[in-house]
Amino acid sequence: MEECVFCKIIKNEIKASIVFENDRFIAFLDKSPIFKGHTLLIPKEHIETLFDFPEDYLEELAVESKLIAEGVKKGTNCDGILLINNNVVSQSVPHFHVHIIPREKGKPLRGFMWPRTKYKDEVEEEGFKEKISKSIEMLK
Amino acid sequence: MEECVFCKIIKNEIKASIVFENDRFIAFLDKSPIFKGHTLLIPKEHIETLFDFPEDYLEELAVESKLIAEGVKKGTNCDGILLINNNVVSQSVPHFHVHIIPREKGKPLRGFMWPRTKYKDEVEEEGFKEKISKSIEMLK
Repeated sequence: MEECVFCKIIKNEIKASIVFENDRFIAFLDKSPIFKGHTLLIPKEHIETLFDFPEDYLEELAVESKLIAEGVKKGTNCDGILLINNNVVSQSVPHFHVHIIPREKGKPLRGFMWPRTKYKDEVEEEGFKEKISKSIEMLK
Repeated sequence: MEECVFCKIIKNEIKASIVFENDRFIAFLDKSPIFKGHTLLIPKEHIETLFDFPEDYLEELAVESKLIAEGVKKGTNCDGILLINNNVVSQSVPHFHVHIIPREKGKPLRGFMWPRTKYKDEVEEEGFKEKISKSIEMLK
């Protein structure tokens, strides 16, 4: 916990440009924005990933995500908002964070594309469908 | 509304590999997955963007996002989950959807990188901070 850079921001041990704070969440500007105004929303509690969120905390996460997204949109006067949340893989800081990124029409994310693939056939797709839907069923 | 491809999936007019469904949400496999098992979670109501979500519906969105993310992780036996939500810009279908994408360590998103920039100086960063935090304050 002591080493977590986001916990240090919460404790004011590292300076950040904070744009929102309440009892449970804090939002601040990413120091290396994809586009300027790129904001990170994090829980004050050291919750590592989405999988570790208690339900009521999670409900507030969605509400604050919308609020911050609206604020970034209004504050930067952009056209749209991109939300990204990496869990485990590509998660640079092991403290849950939602990237809230302003987007403008005609300003593509350089080098950012959707490397799409295809299912081999219906059988392969059906196999994935079965495994995932059963896993969800078991979790409910 | 009639033209919306996601509304057609909800009405069973277009076939999709549905992995989850309840009164308000439905999740199905993306036909052109970034990685196989890539799932889309959408509201059954034709809500265009995050900005259009009523609050209670939004709370359930977070809960179902976690459930589907856990299901995709378990069902594909992947290491982590990437959530992406495009609003307005880069939003191919104007019906709100969260991309829930399985990730494996050592399998990078080809061509997918973070094109980071920097604030010119503290004054520029402070300017963005002020505009965004004031916008959030006004929205609360």
